[in-house]
Amino acid sequence: MGTVDYQCPHRVAIPPSKPFLTSLALTMKETFFPDDPFRQFHGQPPARKLVLGLQYFIPILEWGPRYTFDSFKADLVAGITIASLAVPQGISYANLASLPPIIGLYSSFVPPLIYAMLGSSRDVAVGTVAVASLLISSMLGKEVSPIDHPRQYVQLVFTATFFSGVFQAALGFLRLGFIVDLLSHATIVGFMGGAATVVCLQQLKGILGLVHFTHETDLVSVLRSIFIQVHQWRWESGLLGCCFLFFLLLTKHFSKRKPAFFWINAMAPLASVVLGSVLVYLTHAEKHGVQVIGHLKKGLNPLTVTELTFGPPYLMTTIKTGIITGIIVLAEGIAVGRSFAMFKNYHIDGNKEMIAIGMMNIVGSFTSCYLTSGPFSRTAVNFNAGCKSAISNIVMAMAVMITLLFLTPLFYYTPLVVLSSIIITAMVGLIDYESAFHLWKLDKFDFVVCISSYVGVVFGSIEVGLVTAVALSMLRILIAIARPRTFALGNIPDSTIYRSVDQYPNAAKVPGVLILQIDAPIYFANSNYLRERIYRWIHEEMEDKLKATLQYVILDLSAVGSIDTSGITMLKEIKKNADRLGLKLVLANPRSEVIKKLDKSKFIESMGQEWIYLTVGEAVAACNFMLHSCKSDPQDSNV
Amino acid sequence: MGTVDYQCPHRVAIPPSKPFLTSLALTMKETFFPDDPFRQFHGQPPARKLVLGLQYFIPILEWGPRYTFDSFKADLVAGITIASLAVPQGISYANLASLPPIIGLYSSFVPPLIYAMLGSSRDVAVGTVAVASLLISSMLGKEVSPIDHPRQYVQLVFTATFFSGVFQAALGFLRLGFIVDLLSHATIVGFMGGAATVVCLQQLKGILGLVHFTHETDLVSVLRSIFIQVHQWRWESGLLGCCFLFFLLLTKHFSKRKPAFFWINAMAPLASVVLGSVLVYLTHAEKHGVQVIGHLKKGLNPLTVTELTFGPPYLMTTIKTGIITGIIVLAEGIAVGRSFAMFKNYHIDGNKEMIAIGMMNIVGSFTSCYLTSGPFSRTAVNFNAGCKSAISNIVMAMAVMITLLFLTPLFYYTPLVVLSSIIITAMVGLIDYESAFHLWKLDKFDFVVCISSYVGVVFGSIEVGLVTAVALSMLRILIAIARPRTFALGNIPDSTIYRSVDQYPNAAKVPGVLILQIDAPIYFANSNYLRERIYRWIHEEMEDKLKATLQYVILDLSAVGSIDTSGITMLKEIKKNADRLGLKLVLANPRSEVIKKLDKSKFIESMGQEWIYLTVGEAVAACNFMLHSCKSDPQDSNV
Repeated sequence: MGTVDYQCPHRVAIPPSKPFLTSLALTMKETFFPDDPFRQFHGQPPARKLVLGLQYFIPILEWGPRYTFDSFKADLVAGITIASLAVPQGISYANLASLPPIIGLYSSFVPPLIYAMLGSSRDVAVGTVAVASLLISSMLGKEVSPIDHPRQYVQLVFTATFFSGVFQAALGFLRLGFIVDLLSHATIVGFMGGAATVVCLQQLKGILGLVHFTHETDLVSVLRSIFIQVHQWRWESGLLGCCFLFFLLLTKHFSKRKPAFFWINAMAPLASVVLGSVLVYLTHAEKHGVQVIGHLKKGLNPLTVTELTFGPPYLMTTIKTGIITGIIVLAEGIAVGRSFAMFKNYHIDGNKEMIAIGMMNIVGSFTSCYLTSGPFSRTAVNFNAGCKSAISNIVMAMAVMITLLFLTPLFYYTPLVVLSSIIITAMVGLIDYESAFHLWKLDKFDFVVCISSYVGVVFGSIEVGLVTAVALSMLRILIAIARPRTFALGNIPDSTIYRSVDQYPNAAKVPGVLILQIDAPIYFANSNYLRERIYRWIHEEMEDKLKATLQYVILDLSAVGSIDTSGITMLKEIKKNADRLGLKLVLANPRSEVIKKLDKSKFIESMGQEWIYLTVGEAVAACNFMLHSCKSDPQDSNV
Repeated sequence: MGTVDYQCPHRVAIPPSKPFLTSLALTMKETFFPDDPFRQFHGQPPARKLVLGLQYFIPILEWGPRYTFDSFKADLVAGITIASLAVPQGISYANLASLPPIIGLYSSFVPPLIYAMLGSSRDVAVGTVAVASLLISSMLGKEVSPIDHPRQYVQLVFTATFFSGVFQAALGFLRLGFIVDLLSHATIVGFMGGAATVVCLQQLKGILGLVHFTHETDLVSVLRSIFIQVHQWRWESGLLGCCFLFFLLLTKHFSKRKPAFFWINAMAPLASVVLGSVLVYLTHAEKHGVQVIGHLKKGLNPLTVTELTFGPPYLMTTIKTGIITGIIVLAEGIAVGRSFAMFKNYHIDGNKEMIAIGMMNIVGSFTSCYLTSGPFSRTAVNFNAGCKSAISNIVMAMAVMITLLFLTPLFYYTPLVVLSSIIITAMVGLIDYESAFHLWKLDKFDFVVCISSYVGVVFGSIEVGLVTAVALSMLRILIAIARPRTFALGNIPDSTIYRSVDQYPNAAKVPGVLILQIDAPIYFANSNYLRERIYRWIHEEMEDKLKATLQYVILDLSAVGSIDTSGITMLKEIKKNADRLGLKLVLANPRSEVIKKLDKSKFIESMGQEWIYLTVGEAVAACNFMLHSCKSDPQDSNV
């Protein structure tokens, strides 16, 4: 084997190997504490650390002392505004979840108080979520009928809420927030659109005044259920529904065009409820096919700790429901919080948010509340109303408390059809066809994920859609890992820069040298593929008789962040094969992870440190030097 | 916003966008046909294409005409050598699979013939596999007892073999060979070691002459089963077993040290069988607790097409068994074929091998054979015996045929304890503690995968071990994707090269400029993490009062092979945040996939083409130029 006279300008450094535990601790920190939340604790006295720790876990202790009266005035207005939305929405969504309407009100009382203490967002308004409500009803309703066994059904819902809370808080404590990231933007767009479509279809039950209805959520079952009962359609109910729907959509449209009038949109649901109730009271429409809410119990949330059931028959169902709904509302809550924090330029800690949302659901499940989060619609109203802090949630909770204590009898005559109109209005905005179109333009695969999620939800079930979309997204990542791309590089004219000849058509290949760039970490999942692909590159290059005889193969490892033992075996095989073909293998820019392992596995020893260069440019310079000064040299190394 | 006077030396090219179908076809080709198997068909006349096609699918048509008499002489010797191993091994492994011993002989007759025609390896010797045999017995034995319902059990085994074959051939036809790659080197080392341990333990049954034995495969159950029956241990059997075990291990050790005497190792099992049978015949030990094989039917494989059962009670079990055992033997067969092909410097097409192995199992299941593959031990003997082509498999099949037709009565007195010794000897070599130690030195995570696979197999079950190891390996990939590393770069002295300051301690950071390298494709799974991590880098840099005020953030995208819509949103958010902090975001070396999407999403427009550079060096040069020539400029761009 020829020794190299060529003086390599720079050496590739092999970083000193750290003790195992140090590097493990470092990896753990990068993996679980990327934002380094305990930075501020560093070097503080113990008392100060305790205060900082309390402030860390209970953010209200941090910002509370600085709270001003001016902020309170703003929060008061915002709180009353969202309360006027919370009451009708709470009742509507409870209806959607096949729960007694009063539970919707309970759910707007306790959780906001907990969130105000623990949450780190200043804008999130806590409340129940339409999609999760539907999901709860479709998943648990299959097991226990809410009509035949109402008490048992409610118990299951509380238990599922408890599991959601535990799961959410656990994700936060264990800093496993990245699980939420598995729901990609595309998945969420498709899923939300599908769920909104399904929820709207379900509301046809209320609009048409139907009493019996399917528990399935897919398009086909719902439409069949509607058209089978065509003779039970009530025109009075339908007419009322259409009027209110028109009114609500109109106010929404108006507020969107003139943001200053956001309060019209915020007040419209309550106005509809009042108007609808008065109308029914005056016309006694409840006797002509218009269903009403009926009697609502006065008083605050009863305790339900003892109602939680962990018995065997439904345990798995409640856990599954809890986890699925928990992760969905978590994703929405965190995404919403993050977006509004970005508007106002403050920071939200995802893991802390998870703990806050989890705690409010655990406490909620003990106090007659079902699953809550920070829904987009309510938060947007809160933001537009000028909220300054989580105090607006406390104001809303107080308003709901007053409603619960004194005003529930007023809802006796509220027609269900108004609630349906409120839900439809909220849902229409979630069918985000513009985003879907944007995905198509930008990334075809993301579009496929989005559409399959939509189709899965609308024609299959909510779970089917979700699982399909997540599986497809994961598959994409796995395929990208299993089939990394390799590029031939060429020289950019008038430089020592080497780039892909596909991307830069003016880049010129170097005669006698094949430069390949590998595009991903080398793992067991792709090492076989890479070997085959690299062999093919070499063979294609050697078969091409027009070109100069191939002498050097340079592997550019700039994009190879790490390598495992299968990958090292693969490199060794490529080296052997290259030797056999009379070629010299050269490595360019191995990164610290890679060079460490190549060193440990004696690969560097076997190929010679002098064949590893810091840049492709330097590697090519060395190869050219060898090619011209000692032409027969690489042939010597044939085995 | 300041316009840039600085003349950028090179432009980042945005590759022309290809029509959707063209780029789809290209991606498909890279994903499923990386080795471009149809290259040779290109531009040939139709008749030639037909010939090439036939030769492609039936390799014997390609190499057969060139086969010489010299090669045949070598293959004859090799074939007879492996036949002498095949007969006792076949009977032993059938015993391990709880099948009648004759099925082990059948399985060494038909499948080698099929493989000789379809296989592309010249060295693989076809036969049954110990681990798969045990797996079949433990998975199917749970459903149907091989002792109480022998006929039904055998039917299930044939059906599972059929499914294995279909699955293997389908993987080959659909070019999904990468599924086999999910079994990483570390997984296989741990799994094989664990399985070998379990198989050895199982053989204690034979050695100690026990009649009843547990169907569980884990250490605890097996040891309990042995020690409960301590009074039924037969010393005659044990003594005989230890003698043969000693003899076999000795010959193996001897052959390993002197490879020229490989035939001693190859003949030892047959010699033991003959010796053991003669010994039993002379001493009538079968009446003193030494179990013998007994009567074996004469004649060739009976057809079993009609025996396959696709009925409901066991369908799922047979499919599951078929797929799991199929993938395991496939992994072994392909890895073995590949290794020996590398020794002799010829190429093996993984997908073609899958079709060959699949076809031989499908045909095998029709003709009384159970699962076969290319086991390592038999192939190594074949290679050492100097085989030249797959004809050695045909020779072996002929030798087995003669055995089946005329010699089966000779096995009447063969003691089971000899078979156990043969199995143990074959298994001991599979406990590859040296590889495990090597993994520990090289890659701690691979070591964990290996050990968990071993522990899972030994203390749980074979499936538990396998699933744990595969899940862990996948988890590692997912964590690597979800938590990509980011590095701060510095300038290597006397160059325009920028490298990680962690790896190159002499690299100097540039004052006022933060250069970050992102180490992975940007996907939904890591975009939230990357945003948090990059914010933290920026904040840490800004808090450090000692340094020059931070003005520029350069993101080096060299290692970012692709990006999805979530990633683009993330970049947009970072840009907004940087604007707000009065920083300028600069991109270096975006790759073709990335720049295309950044262009389509109007991100380039919003940040200005002049802030995208071909290399970090050029980006830094531009930033330095701006810093010194127009100091107030970047401040203008604050929003």
